[in-house]
Amino acid sequence: MPGIALATDRREQFVDVTEAVAAAVAELGVTDGAVLLHVPHTTAAVTINEGFDPDVAADVVDVLARLVPRDDGYAHLEGNSDSHVKSIMVGCSQLLGVAGGTPVLGRWQRIFFCEFDGPRQRQLLVLRV
Amino acid sequence: MPGIALATDRREQFVDVTEAVAAAVAELGVTDGAVLLHVPHTTAAVTINEGFDPDVAADVVDVLARLVPRDDGYAHLEGNSDSHVKSIMVGCSQLLGVAGGTPVLGRWQRIFFCEFDGPRQRQLLVLRV
Amino acid sequence: MPGIALATDRREQFVDVTEAVAAAVAELGVTDGAVLLHVPHTTAAVTINEGFDPDVAADVVDVLARLVPRDDGYAHLEGNSDSHVKSIMVGCSQLLGVAGGTPVLGRWQRIFFCEFDGPRQRQLLVLRV
Repeated sequence: MPGIALATDRREQFVDVTEAVAAAVAELGVTDGAVLLHVPHTTAAVTINEGFDPDVAADVVDVLARLVPRDDGYAHLEGNSDSHVKSIMVGCSQLLGVAGGTPVLGRWQRIFFCEFDGPRQRQLLVLRV
Repeated sequence: MPGIALATDRREQFVDVTEAVAAAVAELGVTDGAVLLHVPHTTAAVTINEGFDPDVAADVVDVLARLVPRDDGYAHLEGNSDSHVKSIMVGCSQLLGVAGGTPVLGRWQRIFFCEFDGPRQRQLLVLRV
Repeated sequence: MPGIALATDRREQFVDVTEAVAAAVAELGVTDGAVLLHVPHTTAAVTINEGFDPDVAADVVDVLARLVPRDDGYAHLEGNSDSHVKSIMVGCSQLLGVAGGTPVLGRWQRIFFCEFDGPRQRQLLVLRV
């Protein structure tokens, strides 16, 4: 499957993958339309948001950690129920428009791989639709 | 509209529809690309997450119920404002990659219809894009 | 980029854009398949939910404001970290099925532009996939 391999280095972390996604789009040869970004994991996600100030991603990680505490009497015993919930709240896929061979993004938008149970080796699939 | 009919039996419940979606994809004859999974309801959702341990889905249902209580002085008087909020937080659609006639899913990923105001008769549309 | 321009008039607000999206789909000439609704901003979102009773959208805005308070010791100093978090939780894009030239929506479903840091001039892109 075409995509991006990455290694995260913290338990919870947003990794800016905008340039890697743009390269994958070029490699796929998609010039106009859209590509599907799909995270094939159940404790990670993908989103698009501001990347200029890294404090934004840090705030998002903090808010999610407050909303969904790591330990909260969960039934699932692997200690990562919070990670699954965050993955569902943020979402494991993102459809990205492509125009003129380039991802369609607003001025401040960047694409983030969202790690919620790292550090790990991860993948982000980039698929033609 | 092509899709899947299902009956939920609790107010809040994740129903694993992976096999039914795979059958719908085969029936549509999509071999490579993607299909759109669309929930045509406003108090339900669709997501992709872990299906091996049913405790994961149970934990997600519990966390969402804690974050968005059923009774909380809502303006909408039908008693299901929480269901609408959860539907929006999880999302009413999911684009699913297809390769070789088979849904593109990670090793632990399963597709779930998310009921937030059951029990009811429900539909999940499976559409060509 | 084809799309819809709109002006919001409150900080947090759901604006029903269903008719404008239907017009944009017709203008694009998409008859069957799907269009991508993409919000090119980082403090807004797009969703599909009930539009019959305006209290539903009001409840959603209130619940999100309670879950993600406006002031909560954030690192990002522009005073809109809450807006970024809500944008990520709701999502900045939505794939919308189209059949017979018309958006595929359930009986009670309407499309909402979600403002989380207004009032502002905003755009909702409507893209072929």
